[in-house]
Amino acid sequence: MDYLADERKKAEFDVDEMKIIWAGSRHTFEVSDRISKLVANDPGFRKDNRTMLARKELFKNTLRKAAYAWKRIHELHLSEEEASRLRFYVDEPAYTDLHWGMFVPAIKGQGTDEQQKKWLPLAYKMQIIGCYAQTELGHGSNVQGLETTATFDPQTDEFVIHSPTLTSSKWWPGGLGKVSTHGVVYARLITNGEEHGIHGFIVQLRSLEDHLPLPGVTVGDIGMKFGNGAYNTMDNGVLRFDHVRIPRNQMLMRVSQVTRDGKYKQSDVPRQLVYGTMVYVRQTIVADASCALSRAVTIATRYSAVRRQFGSQNGGPETQVIDYKTQQNRLFPLLASAYAFKFVGEWLTWLYNDVTQRLQASDFSTLPEAHACTAGLKSLTTTATADGIEECRKLCGGHGYLCSSGLPELFAVYVPACTYEGDNTVLLLQHIFTRVVQYGKHFKLLDNKMSCGLSLLVLVARFLMKTVSQLGSGKKPLGTIAYMGKIEHLMQSRCTVQKAEDWLKPSQVLEAFEARAVKMAVSCAKNLSKFTNPEEGFAELSADLVEAAVAHCQLIVVSKFIDKLQQDIPGKGVKQQLEALCGIYYLYLLHKHQGDFLATSYLTPKQAALANDQLRSLYTKVRPNAVALVDSFNYTDHFLGSILGCYDGNVYPKLYDAAWKDPLNDSVVPEGYHEYVRPLLKQQLHTAKL
Amino acid sequence: MDYLADERKKAEFDVDEMKIIWAGSRHTFEVSDRISKLVANDPGFRKDNRTMLARKELFKNTLRKAAYAWKRIHELHLSEEEASRLRFYVDEPAYTDLHWGMFVPAIKGQGTDEQQKKWLPLAYKMQIIGCYAQTELGHGSNVQGLETTATFDPQTDEFVIHSPTLTSSKWWPGGLGKVSTHGVVYARLITNGEEHGIHGFIVQLRSLEDHLPLPGVTVGDIGMKFGNGAYNTMDNGVLRFDHVRIPRNQMLMRVSQVTRDGKYKQSDVPRQLVYGTMVYVRQTIVADASCALSRAVTIATRYSAVRRQFGSQNGGPETQVIDYKTQQNRLFPLLASAYAFKFVGEWLTWLYNDVTQRLQASDFSTLPEAHACTAGLKSLTTTATADGIEECRKLCGGHGYLCSSGLPELFAVYVPACTYEGDNTVLLLQHIFTRVVQYGKHFKLLDNKMSCGLSLLVLVARFLMKTVSQLGSGKKPLGTIAYMGKIEHLMQSRCTVQKAEDWLKPSQVLEAFEARAVKMAVSCAKNLSKFTNPEEGFAELSADLVEAAVAHCQLIVVSKFIDKLQQDIPGKGVKQQLEALCGIYYLYLLHKHQGDFLATSYLTPKQAALANDQLRSLYTKVRPNAVALVDSFNYTDHFLGSILGCYDGNVYPKLYDAAWKDPLNDSVVPEGYHEYVRPLLKQQLHTAKL
Ligand SMILES: Cc1cc2nc3c(=O)[nH]c(=O)nc-3n(C[C@H](O)[C@H](O)[C@H](O)COP(=O)(O)OP(=O)(O)OC[C@H]3O[C@@H](n4cnc5c(N)ncnc54)[C@H](O)[C@@H]3O)c2cc1C
Ligand SMILES: Cc1cc2nc3c(=O)[nH]c(=O)nc-3n(C[C@H](O)[C@H](O)[C@H](O)COP(=O)(O)OP(=O)(O)OC[C@H]3O[C@@H](n4cnc5c(N)ncnc54)[C@H](O)[C@@H]3O)c2cc1C
Repeated sequence: MDYLADERKKAEFDVDEMKIIWAGSRHTFEVSDRISKLVANDPGFRKDNRTMLARKELFKNTLRKAAYAWKRIHELHLSEEEASRLRFYVDEPAYTDLHWGMFVPAIKGQGTDEQQKKWLPLAYKMQIIGCYAQTELGHGSNVQGLETTATFDPQTDEFVIHSPTLTSSKWWPGGLGKVSTHGVVYARLITNGEEHGIHGFIVQLRSLEDHLPLPGVTVGDIGMKFGNGAYNTMDNGVLRFDHVRIPRNQMLMRVSQVTRDGKYKQSDVPRQLVYGTMVYVRQTIVADASCALSRAVTIATRYSAVRRQFGSQNGGPETQVIDYKTQQNRLFPLLASAYAFKFVGEWLTWLYNDVTQRLQASDFSTLPEAHACTAGLKSLTTTATADGIEECRKLCGGHGYLCSSGLPELFAVYVPACTYEGDNTVLLLQHIFTRVVQYGKHFKLLDNKMSCGLSLLVLVARFLMKTVSQLGSGKKPLGTIAYMGKIEHLMQSRCTVQKAEDWLKPSQVLEAFEARAVKMAVSCAKNLSKFTNPEEGFAELSADLVEAAVAHCQLIVVSKFIDKLQQDIPGKGVKQQLEALCGIYYLYLLHKHQGDFLATSYLTPKQAALANDQLRSLYTKVRPNAVALVDSFNYTDHFLGSILGCYDGNVYPKLYDAAWKDPLNDSVVPEGYHEYVRPLLKQQLHTAKL
Repeated sequence: MDYLADERKKAEFDVDEMKIIWAGSRHTFEVSDRISKLVANDPGFRKDNRTMLARKELFKNTLRKAAYAWKRIHELHLSEEEASRLRFYVDEPAYTDLHWGMFVPAIKGQGTDEQQKKWLPLAYKMQIIGCYAQTELGHGSNVQGLETTATFDPQTDEFVIHSPTLTSSKWWPGGLGKVSTHGVVYARLITNGEEHGIHGFIVQLRSLEDHLPLPGVTVGDIGMKFGNGAYNTMDNGVLRFDHVRIPRNQMLMRVSQVTRDGKYKQSDVPRQLVYGTMVYVRQTIVADASCALSRAVTIATRYSAVRRQFGSQNGGPETQVIDYKTQQNRLFPLLASAYAFKFVGEWLTWLYNDVTQRLQASDFSTLPEAHACTAGLKSLTTTATADGIEECRKLCGGHGYLCSSGLPELFAVYVPACTYEGDNTVLLLQHIFTRVVQYGKHFKLLDNKMSCGLSLLVLVARFLMKTVSQLGSGKKPLGTIAYMGKIEHLMQSRCTVQKAEDWLKPSQVLEAFEARAVKMAVSCAKNLSKFTNPEEGFAELSADLVEAAVAHCQLIVVSKFIDKLQQDIPGKGVKQQLEALCGIYYLYLLHKHQGDFLATSYLTPKQAALANDQLRSLYTKVRPNAVALVDSFNYTDHFLGSILGCYDGNVYPKLYDAAWKDPLNDSVVPEGYHEYVRPLLKQQLHTAKL
């Protein structure tokens, strides 16, 4: 029986068409739909017991699943696209994520043709398993501070990889702890006694025969991480090298080389290529954010429609909690954000592909913007998603705290996205840095040194110089910063909204977000210009700069959502729903950041209040469609992994049945009763052995 | 070696005096200090392996610790105060929490003298172990909707306790799942075919001989909850009754009775008393918030002083991350909040004691305010604390994601505080409800029915009527709502700040927060008055009402912090540091809620910017004292349970050593390698059994 059937009947739009919009294309929808059901129906991919397993069992089971997935991929002759979907729907962090997601791309991006020809076939067949070993115990975001050394020995034509200190131990790489046979290891290159900065090396770590660490290699797992199940299926590792030797041709040499006689050379391939991997990873992180958020929102929305509290009239049923405005006010902006992130993610994928094609044609002109965009949006979407998942958990009341709700694990497995690939705050700084300086006529140029505190300083600094010089040359800023060209207009303009519905006009909204972003950036620039030492000013004002970066990134998300709505959108009522969601997204931001809009005097308090009124009306419009809007994500119950979010809404019997499966219920009288409870009840503790 | 010695040398105040301020008194400091060290030095209370244990082991170990604690309490002849401190420092959720924290108080608060005489001595000696069984699978916050029935059978002079539906299963009570022998069970009372609402009953659940559930009782654990270790040491339980009989005198009869012939009677003891338990529990929850937040802040502060990233000059050490303004801007407001919550908690304890004394003298005049205060502040402080702990985790970068950082467990074990004892949003509504209606001349009186959606509706509704009528009678509002008496002035006034330092004047600040709170409340009241059906208006505007409630609660916290500073505060520099923290607290709130202050036109954008400038200066003032300010909490390394937060700052070797203790590192080659990894590497998956 479908306990949510009534909700589904209420929907005012074509859910099947919305599913295709969400998937991005009919093809993607069909592949995802097919593969997700394949995984869901295969007991080999069961995951409902995951949060109950102790670490060793859990990990062993993950090894089994990874192998089983690989086996199925072959048996079913899945295409690369299908295989990657399958791994995605198996939904269990495993060494394979790093192998396919970091190790292979690093070789592709940083290896020479020859290196690619040698290593990629091995990796593709998984005859070797690789990880990405950059972070150390003492150094994460500051890659330039890594301590591991790779010293060239011209006598043997080898590099000696060494961990000179405790803090130089590699620490965190996923798949390293127990599984990887190889790693791309980042180390400080030394030739002829001279340092040449951080480079990547392919290092074999374990024997391909007996899996024992090779001589000089100390390797293990770094221990339990946040949450049950969650990321504990992954063997994040610790690794120390004691003078481990590798052949010279295992340095990744696309960008720079060490010759037979130990000379260090830059190739003509520009250094920007090094950053390809990073941009790629971040772009996928943005796309993943909408996925994680939409899962959480599905659970909270369905459960909010099932859950009833208060409001019973004459003994009738109580009110569905989704009908409370406070619940809507917390939930619907998250639903809208899931869609917003989806569309900005789509656009980023396009941007990334565009950049890649250009790179292949040696056109580096858009890399800086792509880099800044991925960085800023990565930070914005991951933070909002992590907070949003936890909010969804709270929206489920007490039951959200049970692992069987799926939300604790979703949260725990998601949050590191805020941290890895550049801590969010650091990324935001990098972003604003790029941007403020574009408007940098107002203050002195900042050199490389100042940009320390940013992880990809060289790239950013170059971008800055270039953009600034272009501004001087009268060239208009393009892409996501095009609005900066309208600066005179935006600095002067005032919002013309007079009634609530005026807030539904896209042009009105865009101008509001543009004016806010410009004004905040200009205000930062002005404040920066007061410092004689720009480095100091930047450090001092960094909190404000972060806020300005957020304003800019939110503008990007809002404008990409609005752009999406300009496209032809088929299906009854689909466009209308997306318009309502888009409105909720920007009006919610506007309300949340009301202070920014008011402080820049673009809005009056009255206009801000009208925005809030309009937001409320949109909630009413979305309410009857809420369940259908999450159905449109097309997630299987297996993928959701949540009793509260199950498709049929039959929550209570499932919760009740699941409880009895906890190991504690193996026996009626718990282990420990005789030793530790009975003596207490019987007042015999003084003689008890505890 | 003390790696934080330099930081400690920088401190500009007397840390020992601050410790006493934090503890509340020299006596409390001495007891806490002594007992916390006693626990820390006793290997029986070790907890560093907790996150690695599977559920059964974990739980068994908790049973051991609870018994051991009880044994030590007796052996050492600890006073009640010392015993409760010891349980606190053992720092492991256990059935004893509910026994002492809910079961005993429920009997004390709701039992007759006779009942107390019979049951309390058994409970005090732990000859019986009790839980508090209110929530059901289908009903949590709406207590009036509970379905469990207690039907009086006049023939046998017994109540028949029964679970008529699946959703009536008790669900969540801590200690119920595996340990409790008894419970205070809330059920719908029926006598002579008539319903009399929800009442509490003492019900024996398990045999005192063999611990088996009594006939008609089905009981078990509800399964895994959020996090490793964390709250999984607790046996939150599920419970069904199949016509279980208890003697009539096991209904808690202080407030209402059932006579031998089944007549239902109210005693002269006013019904308000029923709510005593709830107010008590919430007040302790507020006090706990500052403790949890201060723990997280200790960890993040110490680690931020140890951790270095970027900014190395000429090969010197890198910058301590605590020196980055963005780090300070995230961390220091949390440090300030920990102190703020401490002081408001202190004040609430005073208020609660005051209320209790009055209750004993049958003076109920202040109960409504105490009730509203505890509700609102409970909601505010728990939300801020949960968010704050997670922020501290993020402030530790990647390493904060490791269980050995202590932060994941602290978060997971803390978050339910936002949910239990009334979901936070519901509490906030209840709070604003109380308050807006005090200013309710502007709109129609709201009756009981409208206040559905609030858990303690009767109490609140009474309070409302009373307050409103008093406002009419010209009586001034008192206590935390006294400022409402200045309404005419506050509605008109404008901020007079002209330079950043003006924001250091307490009167200035108080007026700003008062004006904001009044204006938001009035604006809500005005909007409410537009609805002909006030019930509808309230539902429609609830999100705004919540914001107004937050504004009021923040005012309380700010004003209690300021009050604290009016007291005589001994110790070199102590007062100055507290002043700086107080300033950070309110200026951070002011910046965060800038929109409120600007929208009500109390502030100009310029004045808001000056507040931000002042906030930055205060960061600089607190920076050299940060480590000493967290030392003042006087937490042992055992209690903190965090490698990143360890007192001596010797983080890296400890992290490294801890890693090797993970069960996954028991063997170099992991379990599962031969079955699941080798066949894959060797391309032999097709024949492998997976
Ligand atoms: C689950 C997980 C998986 C991972 N997988 C891998 C992997 O496969 N391979 C790999 O190599 N690494 C991996 N990592 C490591 C990850 O990339 C780093 O943890 C991440 O880059 C953050 O760096 P950090 O831990 O050094 O944080 P830190 O930089 O030490 O951050 C600590 C605090 O300092 C602040 N801070 C630091 N620098 C500045 C600055 N300049 N200005 C202002 N504030 C600053 C940060 O904002 C943060 O609040 C993983 C991490 C996690 C959690
Ligand atoms: C760790 C833990 C320990 C617990 N221990 C105990 C115990 O020992 N004994 C016991 O009896 N119980 C216990 N509980 C249960 C706890 O008291 C309830 O979970 C809590 O009261 C919340 O109720 P709920 O789960 O029904 O949430 P719900 O009320 O179902 O909340 C779901 C959502 O609906 C919203 N909502 C509900 N009503 C309204 C309304 N009127 N207006 C607007 N929004 C509304 C909420 O804000 C929330 O977003 C425990 C719970 C937890 C998590």
